[in-house]
Amino acid sequence: MNKTKVGIINVTGYAGVELARLLYQHPQVELTSVTGRSAAGQRIGKVFPHLASLDLTIEAELGGVDLAFSAMPHKESAKEVIPLLNRGVKVVDISADFRLKKADEYQSWYGFTHPAPQLLKQAVYGLTELYRSQVTSAQLVANPGCYPTGAILALAPVVKEGLIEPDIIFDSKSGVSGAGRTLSLQTHYSEANEDTTAYALDGHRHLPEIIQELRLLGPGQSLSVTFVPHLIPMTRGILTTGYASLASGRVAAGEKGEKELKQLYQDFYKDEPFVKVVETPPHTKHTWGNNLCLIYPTIDHRTGRLVVISCIDNLVKGAAGQAIQNMNLMLGLPETTGLETLAVYP
Amino acid sequence: MNKTKVGIINVTGYAGVELARLLYQHPQVELTSVTGRSAAGQRIGKVFPHLASLDLTIEAELGGVDLAFSAMPHKESAKEVIPLLNRGVKVVDISADFRLKKADEYQSWYGFTHPAPQLLKQAVYGLTELYRSQVTSAQLVANPGCYPTGAILALAPVVKEGLIEPDIIFDSKSGVSGAGRTLSLQTHYSEANEDTTAYALDGHRHLPEIIQELRLLGPGQSLSVTFVPHLIPMTRGILTTGYASLASGRVAAGEKGEKELKQLYQDFYKDEPFVKVVETPPHTKHTWGNNLCLIYPTIDHRTGRLVVISCIDNLVKGAAGQAIQNMNLMLGLPETTGLETLAVYP
Amino acid sequence: MNKTKVGIINVTGYAGVELARLLYQHPQVELTSVTGRSAAGQRIGKVFPHLASLDLTIEAELGGVDLAFSAMPHKESAKEVIPLLNRGVKVVDISADFRLKKADEYQSWYGFTHPAPQLLKQAVYGLTELYRSQVTSAQLVANPGCYPTGAILALAPVVKEGLIEPDIIFDSKSGVSGAGRTLSLQTHYSEANEDTTAYALDGHRHLPEIIQELRLLGPGQSLSVTFVPHLIPMTRGILTTGYASLASGRVAAGEKGEKELKQLYQDFYKDEPFVKVVETPPHTKHTWGNNLCLIYPTIDHRTGRLVVISCIDNLVKGAAGQAIQNMNLMLGLPETTGLETLAVYP
Amino acid sequence: MNKTKVGIINVTGYAGVELARLLYQHPQVELTSVTGRSAAGQRIGKVFPHLASLDLTIEAELGGVDLAFSAMPHKESAKEVIPLLNRGVKVVDISADFRLKKADEYQSWYGFTHPAPQLLKQAVYGLTELYRSQVTSAQLVANPGCYPTGAILALAPVVKEGLIEPDIIFDSKSGVSGAGRTLSLQTHYSEANEDTTAYALDGHRHLPEIIQELRLLGPGQSLSVTFVPHLIPMTRGILTTGYASLASGRVAAGEKGEKELKQLYQDFYKDEPFVKVVETPPHTKHTWGNNLCLIYPTIDHRTGRLVVISCIDNLVKGAAGQAIQNMNLMLGLPETTGLETLAVYP
Repeated sequence: MNKTKVGIINVTGYAGVELARLLYQHPQVELTSVTGRSAAGQRIGKVFPHLASLDLTIEAELGGVDLAFSAMPHKESAKEVIPLLNRGVKVVDISADFRLKKADEYQSWYGFTHPAPQLLKQAVYGLTELYRSQVTSAQLVANPGCYPTGAILALAPVVKEGLIEPDIIFDSKSGVSGAGRTLSLQTHYSEANEDTTAYALDGHRHLPEIIQELRLLGPGQSLSVTFVPHLIPMTRGILTTGYASLASGRVAAGEKGEKELKQLYQDFYKDEPFVKVVETPPHTKHTWGNNLCLIYPTIDHRTGRLVVISCIDNLVKGAAGQAIQNMNLMLGLPETTGLETLAVYP
Repeated sequence: MNKTKVGIINVTGYAGVELARLLYQHPQVELTSVTGRSAAGQRIGKVFPHLASLDLTIEAELGGVDLAFSAMPHKESAKEVIPLLNRGVKVVDISADFRLKKADEYQSWYGFTHPAPQLLKQAVYGLTELYRSQVTSAQLVANPGCYPTGAILALAPVVKEGLIEPDIIFDSKSGVSGAGRTLSLQTHYSEANEDTTAYALDGHRHLPEIIQELRLLGPGQSLSVTFVPHLIPMTRGILTTGYASLASGRVAAGEKGEKELKQLYQDFYKDEPFVKVVETPPHTKHTWGNNLCLIYPTIDHRTGRLVVISCIDNLVKGAAGQAIQNMNLMLGLPETTGLETLAVYP
Repeated sequence: MNKTKVGIINVTGYAGVELARLLYQHPQVELTSVTGRSAAGQRIGKVFPHLASLDLTIEAELGGVDLAFSAMPHKESAKEVIPLLNRGVKVVDISADFRLKKADEYQSWYGFTHPAPQLLKQAVYGLTELYRSQVTSAQLVANPGCYPTGAILALAPVVKEGLIEPDIIFDSKSGVSGAGRTLSLQTHYSEANEDTTAYALDGHRHLPEIIQELRLLGPGQSLSVTFVPHLIPMTRGILTTGYASLASGRVAAGEKGEKELKQLYQDFYKDEPFVKVVETPPHTKHTWGNNLCLIYPTIDHRTGRLVVISCIDNLVKGAAGQAIQNMNLMLGLPETTGLETLAVYP
Repeated sequence: MNKTKVGIINVTGYAGVELARLLYQHPQVELTSVTGRSAAGQRIGKVFPHLASLDLTIEAELGGVDLAFSAMPHKESAKEVIPLLNRGVKVVDISADFRLKKADEYQSWYGFTHPAPQLLKQAVYGLTELYRSQVTSAQLVANPGCYPTGAILALAPVVKEGLIEPDIIFDSKSGVSGAGRTLSLQTHYSEANEDTTAYALDGHRHLPEIIQELRLLGPGQSLSVTFVPHLIPMTRGILTTGYASLASGRVAAGEKGEKELKQLYQDFYKDEPFVKVVETPPHTKHTWGNNLCLIYPTIDHRTGRLVVISCIDNLVKGAAGQAIQNMNLMLGLPETTGLETLAVYP
């Protein structure tokens, strides 16, 4: 059987190398081309020793492939993606360039005019669990941000069912790899180690994505979302704690309500291979290196408040793994192909 | 000048050794007696090499001192403290035994009858910034828990002024030393490293303490508090993110309201040597090893929600440092004596 | 095709769960039985959430399997293994019980009489690269210790060729998971984090294993080995730095000698799927979660001293991965089956 | 009493801010001027929040002081220091510019001609324990490198007494802050975390310093030193393991020799306030934030090899703390002034 040829634009960031790692173990596709401006011309194993088994040279331009992943930064990504789409190549874009449906919102958050607003409608938001059928037939998938993946999956069931009041808080704790491979004082080892801080308090770029999707799930609920990301001293993993008040009269009191709530989550995600509703508070470590999202819904009975915790590996379900999950659907492959590995623990 | 003699009951936990470290650099008191059942009879430097400069043998029973710190676990602590009080010794109790004003609440959270309910009224809750004058004349100070210290200081100004709606959420991120020196799987290195998790979702024992104090600050506000602690992979530090909706009409909109809010915090803490209202989101690292609490109040203007972040070193302002701050007042010394060191950075 | 049935004795330690993780992704064998005294009767996913995909209950006694891994502690392991061997089951023993060829040496290092000294000759030392053909036909393989794996592979080529003086020093740096899942103060998070220390300075139990194997490679060389292990604050990985003086006249001076040396290593390991001789100093991170051993040989030209660095993941090539590498050979499967994943980076 | 005025050239690196932290708690000197090109004009607390208590603005040029610390990089430092010396200011230079006695050696290791070779003789190598009397009367002290401090102190007693063979190996493990505050991929959090590597295998610039000083201690011994530094995932601390063979017949065999050796170390360092010969393998954590060097000498009785372990905080005894120790002597103050704090543990 011929394997489908796929490529990675900008393999040199953390999402890019994670794609390469995961594609290497994929039985149905072959990674045949990778690009990266600064490292063009070098063997991939020279730049990334853990990828030395890949027989690839980093190129300046992407070779002929059936599907391309773009791991370029936003703005740059759209420029690379548009010509590929015109040539009929399928694309999973890991950048933020096609996630927001409204061009003006894109402009206000990213500070420049979107180069191809007509594509925003065509692009499918690649949170696979919510858009499976659209992804299957998409040419362009906008892979979700790492924070939105964990946040949206945490509250999707209750927003869809209209069980909560509109005031939502997401308090997220992210490992440092989420900030990428570009050097900064914030991610300098001696600064980030033994430290925790909140950031982007005037509005993180993942916020409009979260709001857009939750409002689509719960139209007419006037959702009002506060999202505060925190940096914590670990390499991988995002734990998001979501808070909302239960809508009056929609969930029973006490243990009964707790049971109903858990059942709702179990039902909502019952056929999902990569979302597990768990019975004890989850650990990011239990998703280390794999594509799972673990979700723990509970009720603070003293206050009637809903608390839902989700865990993902920001580079897998939060980026490269979900991109491959989407690719599988776009290529007509079983959704879990190449993604069945367990978390690396401890 | 004769130095005041002080002692530590149960020096062998992390709060105990931190007390020993800080007292060693205190110019006005002398640590003359330390106890610890399991290590009784050993030189302190044998058990804790970093304390080898202290000329002390760990004892089974506390020697004669003017003031004692109890770093015993709850329930055990009360037993040790009561006879000392009867002998006229001043006591700073680091355990939870005298923090809650109501004996029945104590019973419901700690699972046994309080042995000396009459002392609950006499004891002063040692959050120094709120109870300075009472601490000064107290014989028994109940040193606050680490989480309550950061949480209460974060919202005290707005609760006192009645500026927020009654629904309050505290999302706290704590370093692992907060869980103490007792071995557990949760705090085993390979489990806690590269991991984050929430815990005590059915109610952490620090919650009643937080509620008690906030309600005293804002009587009649019907405060409803959700508190979710998280364990993060670092040794020291607690960052607490507090969320509440601004009460309608009490704070101006936009930048003006933000400015008023910051001014309120600056005014509230303007004479406090150990609370600093900062202008950028604080890092736990900037309190590493010292007695500061850094507070950053801000408004999420999209939602009109108040977000306040506080940082402390859980073993210093969250335990041993605050205990010495209280001791200074109880002994008539300047409050900052022995506590002026800067954070150890990076 | 029927998969071969395999089992794990004592799945509840870190080597045990790592075996389970790796076997889950193995296409030719099926993990059908796992034991663990303390957790017997529980679903494996209850105790280890990252293994929830495995449809297994932890048992008190091993079920019928064709090949068993024993991840019991030493002494206990022999007791479990002997009856299995008598029943004709193939065994890979991850404990130290069958590694030393001489029963008296075993006794002097482990403090009790070996229960089955006749098996010591029969057992094959499972450093696959050195004993491939014997492993292929073995019924009992003694899987090497984590430190010996990295140390022996680092110097095997030069010892075999007689290129070094007999004085050898191994300075090893190990992640904390090497100390296992059993609780201890040494591996308590707040103690091990931000700390480094040497330990077992009066002789680590892996030393006789290293000496035994190096002497077999270089008989008559009177090798004298000093081995000092260090604990460093990371979960996985061992980096070993080996030092020895070059034998006079055996290696050319300067760059020429360096080239010869590197060529010798390249030749020695040229057909090895899991040993890579690398051109820059290796990082433990580049073996994170996979079965590679990276080796970097170099000469300190100022002193004519050989310095060789090796990196492994202590739980994979240093334990579970190598065990499966051996299993593959014992079952007549390609050696790399189920072990082809790349390291998880960053 | 008037305090002596001191200044810091280039306060913006880790050695610079550590000097500021330690000087803040010094009772006899006042930090009156700090420079830093990139941050000139800013309040020090703006750039380094943990130093907000210092009433200082970072300047472009150093103000009038009696003694200056230079924390400039090498080459730059000499340029700053020479005019100060000409004005009669005392200087502790933390850079490498005046450590090597021979200008040609400086040139070969640092790649350019030393701008003031005549000062190399005048400069005193500031390893206080070895050059106390010279430091006391020096105008220019060259503060030792972090690695040389731990390495030289580890073997000074046996080199001085001629008890070892000339082949010496130092295997050092350093926290990441030793690489400074300048950004690099090597010190990017996600790269350095959960990783260990060796570096500078073709010769670290601290090697000539180590050799120079050991040869001065043991002239005529033809010492041959191999030094391999390793980066380990922690912020502070260096643990150095030194290896050498005992000279034949100079130390008794067995326990007797071990005892003699320990006694030699105890005697050698018996009056040293900052060097402690310890009875169990030391932890870097036990020097966290203070000026101690812990030394543990032992003999590998199987091979007759000496193994000596030393621990320091690279930013204190390895840089800023030792600089202040030297300053104290240069100013006629007790050597320990301002440096008596205990290590911050855990």
